[in-house]
Amino acid sequence: MPELAYLNGKILPISETYIPIEDRGYQFGDAVYEFIASYNGKMFCMKEHLDRLQHSMAGLFFPELDKNFIERAVFELFEKAKIARAGIYIQISRGVAPRDHAWAKNMKVQIIMTIKEVKELSSKLREEGIDIITVPDERWLNCDIKTVQILPNAMAKQKAKNKGAFDAIFISKDGIVREGTSSNFFMVKDNKLITPPLSKNILPGVTRRVVLDLADDTGIETQEKLFSKTELFSADEAFLTGTITEVLGIKTIDKRKIGTGKPGKITQKLYKALREKAE
Amino acid sequence: MPELAYLNGKILPISETYIPIEDRGYQFGDAVYEFIASYNGKMFCMKEHLDRLQHSMAGLFFPELDKNFIERAVFELFEKAKIARAGIYIQISRGVAPRDHAWAKNMKVQIIMTIKEVKELSSKLREEGIDIITVPDERWLNCDIKTVQILPNAMAKQKAKNKGAFDAIFISKDGIVREGTSSNFFMVKDNKLITPPLSKNILPGVTRRVVLDLADDTGIETQEKLFSKTELFSADEAFLTGTITEVLGIKTIDKRKIGTGKPGKITQKLYKALREKAE
Repeated sequence: MPELAYLNGKILPISETYIPIEDRGYQFGDAVYEFIASYNGKMFCMKEHLDRLQHSMAGLFFPELDKNFIERAVFELFEKAKIARAGIYIQISRGVAPRDHAWAKNMKVQIIMTIKEVKELSSKLREEGIDIITVPDERWLNCDIKTVQILPNAMAKQKAKNKGAFDAIFISKDGIVREGTSSNFFMVKDNKLITPPLSKNILPGVTRRVVLDLADDTGIETQEKLFSKTELFSADEAFLTGTITEVLGIKTIDKRKIGTGKPGKITQKLYKALREKAE
Repeated sequence: MPELAYLNGKILPISETYIPIEDRGYQFGDAVYEFIASYNGKMFCMKEHLDRLQHSMAGLFFPELDKNFIERAVFELFEKAKIARAGIYIQISRGVAPRDHAWAKNMKVQIIMTIKEVKELSSKLREEGIDIITVPDERWLNCDIKTVQILPNAMAKQKAKNKGAFDAIFISKDGIVREGTSSNFFMVKDNKLITPPLSKNILPGVTRRVVLDLADDTGIETQEKLFSKTELFSADEAFLTGTITEVLGIKTIDKRKIGTGKPGKITQKLYKALREKAE
């Protein structure tokens, strides 16, 4: 079960995979990415991830790529690595050209991927919930496009780590809750599941959509609406969603207890439903 | 006079210089950069650029690097390439590590550089001035740190190019003028030179500082203050400043003529003073 990389059609060990220094992904953050996980040897929500990848590419005016081409490449890597519980990282940059802000005509996109074993979060963390912090949202205004311009996300995650927390969520200048550093945010209030609506300020999370659908299926009322950091603290439950995060209950936010201070019933129910669907 | 690259101490042809795909500069935009030019075989404002590089590194909590070390590396490349009118691009990333938003401890920064011949802007462009467009400033809120998260800059420059313009300037949601895609913005009104004050919304341009000082030296009154897009259109003169741009007069903004529609007297005077200082 080797960890491997893919580079424009070739499969190589990750540590032996290099890109030219004038790849625009390196010098301009001019690249998009996706992260897809498999459960028991089967890719989960592959179509949704590849659809979003195309949405991101279109957002940056990349030339169109045949979705089947990317899908075949993903499967090629997946079959070679034979990792049943895999995380596949896909990054597509605009291409390589002498450094210039404007891009050259007829650039050839560069496709890299890595496949690694997913490190499951500990069951202790899942049972007890996580501590998170809030940070000001200082990101650019096109967060619906999944680009590699995620330095503010990296810095927020590191800040959380430095404070002994698991993650951070972004709060707008006006006090509105956005999302986590690599996850969407949900709260439960009076048995209603609430999450911010899609906008240019958050990523259209694949797991976010799955969780909303699972809630509908199991008779949990859902609402997509903006809410403030203040409202957050009166929530009965809160959790993050993401490809690796799945449904991860929150214990405290900025050291203040959410609900009973343990992942609540709806959080647990949705986590279980997601795992069942994925497996 | 070969174009060359530098990679962590080695000097190589640019096209043979590669970085690992898990360099955080590639996957998180977690890198800073500078661009320094030489005139007649002498680097211009080297100290100021290296000071700003250290400011950028500190802003991202990179480990401190000995400034003399970088300076020596720059000179090594410069002496090897023997390009009298050179542009040196320096990029420092946080380092290489398995992909994770938070960074690993004791990471080793990666230093790349390229040296190329500067392509001078045409004298026609300098004499007639440039057309620019305005675009909404959708960048992140730490534009004083010179990171490679410059996709919005690249997209704005491309938009300008598509419209037959030379460059774009960023306008805040409230209508305030910020800066160009890789330059600072100045206007002249009633013989007074006006430019936005330093803040987190603009880059502390090296050429910006030099031009303000040159204006002081030559008895031109200067003022650092915020001004709106509306005020812009009543300017007598306007220009961009930057390492390659130098002092570049603006003919039109969003197709509206500025002043007489030609680079004005103060613009020309400051361009001449800058070239004299640099040469």
